[in-house]
Amino acid sequence: MGYPKDAKLLIIHADDLGVSHSENEATIAAMEKGSVNSASIMVPTPWFSEIAAYATSHPTADFGLHLTLTSEWKHYKWGPLADAVPGLDNNNGFLYSSVDSVYQSASLAEVEKELRTQIEKAKHFGIDFTHFDSHMAALFGRQDYLKLLMQLGREYKVPVMLARTGPRSVFNQDLTSFVTDKDVLVDGIFTASPNDFKNGMDKFYTGVMNTIKPGLNILIIHTAYDDKEMQAVTIEHPDWGAAWRQADYNFFTSDACKKLLKDQNIRLVTWREVRDKLLR
Amino acid sequence: MGYPKDAKLLIIHADDLGVSHSENEATIAAMEKGSVNSASIMVPTPWFSEIAAYATSHPTADFGLHLTLTSEWKHYKWGPLADAVPGLDNNNGFLYSSVDSVYQSASLAEVEKELRTQIEKAKHFGIDFTHFDSHMAALFGRQDYLKLLMQLGREYKVPVMLARTGPRSVFNQDLTSFVTDKDVLVDGIFTASPNDFKNGMDKFYTGVMNTIKPGLNILIIHTAYDDKEMQAVTIEHPDWGAAWRQADYNFFTSDACKKLLKDQNIRLVTWREVRDKLLR
Repeated sequence: MGYPKDAKLLIIHADDLGVSHSENEATIAAMEKGSVNSASIMVPTPWFSEIAAYATSHPTADFGLHLTLTSEWKHYKWGPLADAVPGLDNNNGFLYSSVDSVYQSASLAEVEKELRTQIEKAKHFGIDFTHFDSHMAALFGRQDYLKLLMQLGREYKVPVMLARTGPRSVFNQDLTSFVTDKDVLVDGIFTASPNDFKNGMDKFYTGVMNTIKPGLNILIIHTAYDDKEMQAVTIEHPDWGAAWRQADYNFFTSDACKKLLKDQNIRLVTWREVRDKLLR
Repeated sequence: MGYPKDAKLLIIHADDLGVSHSENEATIAAMEKGSVNSASIMVPTPWFSEIAAYATSHPTADFGLHLTLTSEWKHYKWGPLADAVPGLDNNNGFLYSSVDSVYQSASLAEVEKELRTQIEKAKHFGIDFTHFDSHMAALFGRQDYLKLLMQLGREYKVPVMLARTGPRSVFNQDLTSFVTDKDVLVDGIFTASPNDFKNGMDKFYTGVMNTIKPGLNILIIHTAYDDKEMQAVTIEHPDWGAAWRQADYNFFTSDACKKLLKDQNIRLVTWREVRDKLLR
């Protein structure tokens, strides 16, 4: 990408746009005023139209698609967008809550139909998406799904959030022979666990910033407000819940975060830059 | 129904449950602590599961189905529940914003398929629905749609919100010969207009209460909080907007409302009572 070999490159990436007004509003604020510089959109969610309108009116903002096969919250649900994908439907008209249920029920053809419907809907709304990733990492846990995701990335000429190592490693699924030098592989992906949340998000993110290595790194976060809407969305689910998302918002709009990035010589890059320099 | 002929019977009916967490929460509060005694649920909405869980855990509460063919808000949308109903789809995967667009595009067979999908989903979730009505009155403006709605009411043995006169009059659509003595016809239906909102909701509702006539009457209202979520749902739409719904909530949880009902000898009845006495 034209950076020195020892450059510490980082994408600070907020997931789950579209899920709620709270998530949209907080993430937009964290991008405009804070250090978040990339985000991804869930096309089947109820607030998709709101973030699509923002994306098309802010064409330089960096938005990818958070391709979605699950609807995980208790009382607030969405269904698949494609017609006639019974293997993705939990028998209530909604996507399944868990990734395991998707793996047990959905055929690869149904997954492909649903992903293409989501991608084409985003295009139809005018979103110039910069990358693909996968909600709840559903597309990373099976070789056939991951191969499909990589094929879609090549077809639409956008990078997929794939890593060399860790849970999103393309090599976990024995796809070594499938990977080409056109596939972008990220050097490090970081995201907070429930344990990190318990120990304090500031501590976790400060630790990531202080130890980040040269190469292309991604920090996956979730920014929303700890408000009534988000509390109701995430009810009975403190992990990745409203307080968690507020803590992410607080850290990534703080001066402390900006200072850390500067002190550690971390250079923020976007998926748009990756896409346009490496794939187009 | 066994009341004296001069009894002033009233159902205070909140529409639009399921549309948002704010609408669900405020309406439940207005039913539990205020004077609202009936409400209707929109099955295709994102927060349907939340109100369905409440309805099944509160089996004596009076909930009907607000059968839905439209998705009218700017940035917050839902689609049809049935597969393969292109005439109900605005080409973005959502229901149309306006009733007129539905009339121009949807076939009667598509409308029937969608309504049956909504009704069966409500049954599948365990909702003991007490009546049917129609979001944005879409099913009242065409003879074929209204006949379908009445047939569904007969089939499921629930009353439909039909009036003898006014905009929801069954006689508007030249269905005189179709009406039987099994169809429940309401004597008066009242609901605030944008002009009434401008002049003050307290004034409007006090006027209704002070002039209500003997017979079965319905007051259609919309209770939600004027909070961030509801403001975002109803953005750029002050009519039936967040402040409107807060005003409804305020009046129908007030002591003034309770006093008026008492002073005017208004007797609150539910659709469940109507259904069980007249149709079952």
